[in-house]
Amino acid sequence: MLGFLGGTGPEGKGLALRFAQAGHEVLIGSRDLLRAQQSVEEIHALLPQAIVRAKTNLEVAQEATIVFITVPFSAQTALLEPLKAPLENKVIVSTSIPLQFTRSHIRAIPVDEGCAALQVQTILPTSKVVGAFQNVSATDLLIPETPIHCDVVVCSDDADAKGKVMALAQEIEEIRAIDGGALENSRYVEDFTALLLNINRIYKGSRTMIRISGFAEPS
Amino acid sequence: MLGFLGGTGPEGKGLALRFAQAGHEVLIGSRDLLRAQQSVEEIHALLPQAIVRAKTNLEVAQEATIVFITVPFSAQTALLEPLKAPLENKVIVSTSIPLQFTRSHIRAIPVDEGCAALQVQTILPTSKVVGAFQNVSATDLLIPETPIHCDVVVCSDDADAKGKVMALAQEIEEIRAIDGGALENSRYVEDFTALLLNINRIYKGSRTMIRISGFAEPS
Repeated sequence: MLGFLGGTGPEGKGLALRFAQAGHEVLIGSRDLLRAQQSVEEIHALLPQAIVRAKTNLEVAQEATIVFITVPFSAQTALLEPLKAPLENKVIVSTSIPLQFTRSHIRAIPVDEGCAALQVQTILPTSKVVGAFQNVSATDLLIPETPIHCDVVVCSDDADAKGKVMALAQEIEEIRAIDGGALENSRYVEDFTALLLNINRIYKGSRTMIRISGFAEPS
Repeated sequence: MLGFLGGTGPEGKGLALRFAQAGHEVLIGSRDLLRAQQSVEEIHALLPQAIVRAKTNLEVAQEATIVFITVPFSAQTALLEPLKAPLENKVIVSTSIPLQFTRSHIRAIPVDEGCAALQVQTILPTSKVVGAFQNVSATDLLIPETPIHCDVVVCSDDADAKGKVMALAQEIEEIRAIDGGALENSRYVEDFTALLLNINRIYKGSRTMIRISGFAEPS
């Protein structure tokens, strides 16, 4: 069972839709159950066969086995502090990005813990934190028939959790999961998102994502 | 005329080879003229028709119109301080990356000025600094018949210099140049190299590089 804490934003809804499309049961969490229900209706409108249910964030933390954090970075600490107990030992997917938007620039901002994913690990020390999906276009995710032509770099210090999230990522059509090593490497994926957003401003209408070339042929 | 300060390392030789292949006259600079001459011989062995000459770093700074810095990051300040006068107002391409290698990790390290390219701009305030080519595989560059299947993200605060370097990048077969915005955005490209090198350790034998997907179709 996959759950989304703060699943009412575009990234949460988009990932929830794609995992429902792949056959998973999905829980959409929100502080406000009505907003979660609205998001569930939006997903059903796009994908009538989806098995998606509205929950409070607390219920998601209790019931889901893999929990995605899909709130803005600035809301992350307040979201997670009260959910420490139900999230113990679970696989937690950190997707948020510490960004600052100004008129002329989009910048990655420093995080005391090192990056968003390391902040999650600091708040939830016994959870199996995985950094992934930080720069998959939500707009594309929300169009069920669009393949997602990008690489998802998956970083974690827990090999089993990393493997589970890599397998999940590859259930989305055309996404390739790449082992990005330790959780601290999430920083590079998070920060690179600032560059992609600047590129989207320069090349108007683009929704750029990462691809990585140059993999050795399996021998 | 293209010049390489510290052009005797693999990245300098590799880029010099490719630009010579595209028909440019190239100057290979070193502190040690004998080493520069060795590098020129290596390039000639790979590409006999190359017009490549050995120079001191000072001569490169004086004679080249576009100057590539291809020394390790730690050597950059000592290299550039004595060359301030001849490099005034020139186009300078910053390719270096502030990295720390340990047995278990490869990490991007913080730079007081913000990143390697901003450090160059601080040392050479009147030069037109461009960040580019930070993560193009030197191994691939040194095989003249191998197309380079990657994107070169080009960052600068000088539009004219940026345009010149983007045009140069596209002269290398299959490289696509992408406008990455302001010079400060070089940080994201530099730091991402640490992730690519970690990925190369995980997927042994790989020489990964950046591709970016999701560009809007020109309308």
